[in-house]
Amino acid sequence: MLDSLPPAVTIVEVGPRDGLQNESEQVATADKVRLIEALAATGLRHIEITSFVSPKWIPQMADAPAVASTVRLPPGVVSSALVPNAKGYEAARLAGMKDIAVFMSASETHSRKNINKSIDEALATLSEVVRLSQRDGVRVRGYLSVVFSCPYEGKVNPVDVVKLSARLFELGVEEVSLGDTIGAATPTDVRDLLKLFGSEADRRRIALHFHDTRGTALANVVAGLDGGITVFDASIGGMGGCPYAPGAAGNLATEDLVYMLHGMGIQTGIDLDKLVDCGELAQQIVKRKLPGRYLQACLSNRAIKLQQAAGREAEVTQ
Amino acid sequence: MLDSLPPAVTIVEVGPRDGLQNESEQVATADKVRLIEALAATGLRHIEITSFVSPKWIPQMADAPAVASTVRLPPGVVSSALVPNAKGYEAARLAGMKDIAVFMSASETHSRKNINKSIDEALATLSEVVRLSQRDGVRVRGYLSVVFSCPYEGKVNPVDVVKLSARLFELGVEEVSLGDTIGAATPTDVRDLLKLFGSEADRRRIALHFHDTRGTALANVVAGLDGGITVFDASIGGMGGCPYAPGAAGNLATEDLVYMLHGMGIQTGIDLDKLVDCGELAQQIVKRKLPGRYLQACLSNRAIKLQQAAGREAEVTQ
Repeated sequence: MLDSLPPAVTIVEVGPRDGLQNESEQVATADKVRLIEALAATGLRHIEITSFVSPKWIPQMADAPAVASTVRLPPGVVSSALVPNAKGYEAARLAGMKDIAVFMSASETHSRKNINKSIDEALATLSEVVRLSQRDGVRVRGYLSVVFSCPYEGKVNPVDVVKLSARLFELGVEEVSLGDTIGAATPTDVRDLLKLFGSEADRRRIALHFHDTRGTALANVVAGLDGGITVFDASIGGMGGCPYAPGAAGNLATEDLVYMLHGMGIQTGIDLDKLVDCGELAQQIVKRKLPGRYLQACLSNRAIKLQQAAGREAEVTQ
Repeated sequence: MLDSLPPAVTIVEVGPRDGLQNESEQVATADKVRLIEALAATGLRHIEITSFVSPKWIPQMADAPAVASTVRLPPGVVSSALVPNAKGYEAARLAGMKDIAVFMSASETHSRKNINKSIDEALATLSEVVRLSQRDGVRVRGYLSVVFSCPYEGKVNPVDVVKLSARLFELGVEEVSLGDTIGAATPTDVRDLLKLFGSEADRRRIALHFHDTRGTALANVVAGLDGGITVFDASIGGMGGCPYAPGAAGNLATEDLVYMLHGMGIQTGIDLDKLVDCGELAQQIVKRKLPGRYLQACLSNRAIKLQQAAGREAEVTQ
């Protein structure tokens, strides 16, 4: 019964990249910088701040060089940027990035639809980036997407995911983040995949990246914790997700994750109240209500407290 | 690693009662009946259809006798009604109810604030109802609320919860549903509480009732499954919750629960597609978007399919 939980976990905040890249309305660079700096002040120790992709693909990330060179982070906070290829890598380096992330799909069809490359072609591009990183002493994180379900192929074979992860480690990727990109996984999927990673040493280099599209993200985190994982990705307010399903929830919300972990006695080093302030800031920036449950409960409660302070009748039950 | 999961679970649908009782705008009796009958057609085998409380307390439930006597359910579907006292019990019996539910708080302050009775006074009222039920051969379910956290007292002692549950079983309550009324529990809270229920026989008579206020409901279900629980309450679309936090999520959504359980290979006997139709119907009835994640993902996806059918450009990734 959930008896071997880790004492602490690391959260990688992906909101400024994975969250904002799905926003159709252009967010001002200054707002992005303000959000990233506020996130860094919560105690988060790793923030993915932007993506050096072609502005033709993702116009929202066209200001990557400006974001990277403007943002000021306290010592000890790692900031990373996504890069799709050698050209993106050089741009990231020019902007002073010392940590990068590469990505590829675990399914052949998703790979072709997403980046117009086969898995082997994606691996070739990716290994070129890793080689350059190693030359420069840059740390590389690798995202493997659609590791449980592919929108085109359905269930993904976990054996293939383990093989691809091993390939990424061999190339020199330091940490592999396994992504449930469409938010379809359930806890037994997570359990079964993790069992295939033989050694605890392997599991220490695996991160899990869940989406809450069907509400299962935190349940999957529990299965991940139970399976020895200590690094989880999350996005402030639950920003992000699938651009083709605008009414659906997106990434796992950082506040939901931190609330649960702290409640379970698992340390994150993060100040949850400050994180809620960041969620409120993120809502202002993207000009809409974000799907994070904890955020909405807190903001609703704050609104009630404001009403009470104004002498109106209301009762606080939380 | 989550290795002793049950092959099947029972879901108790509480939307028509626990969900609707929080709606401020009066819902027509015919709409309630339509929703309950649609829910019964999904394969759900236990639906709490209404509450025989004083209309002064909860005006939304003033039509309890009409709902109970109008609704037509297929054989094998249990319908129950909440009753607060002997008067409510007699009204429920007059309306033909054969299954009832009683309720009380696990915290002294919540008990006084909620029903203006101490725990001992609440137990006395409740035992009178159970005595009448036993005379009539009526099955009694018992709700114990705020079993993890109380909005007034904070953390609730799990030892007290186990004692109160034992007291309810002694009185003749057949199943006790433990409620995380304010949605504050995390999986280790659930684990720790369940460990205190010594025997598997005891755990077979315990149901868990989670709220998704902070996003932890399904994660708590995982802890419940891992701890030997096989009965879970849920509410269609996630209807319900705290009337004092209108922006927050409410009860665990039935569709989210069924999606996760089926994905874990755990049977429920419920048709998930039909459940989504019920969620859509519930939204029409309460005239607002409900918080269920799976429901919103499906409705968003259906909207996209409709757009595609109309020849507009859109891509379905789920």
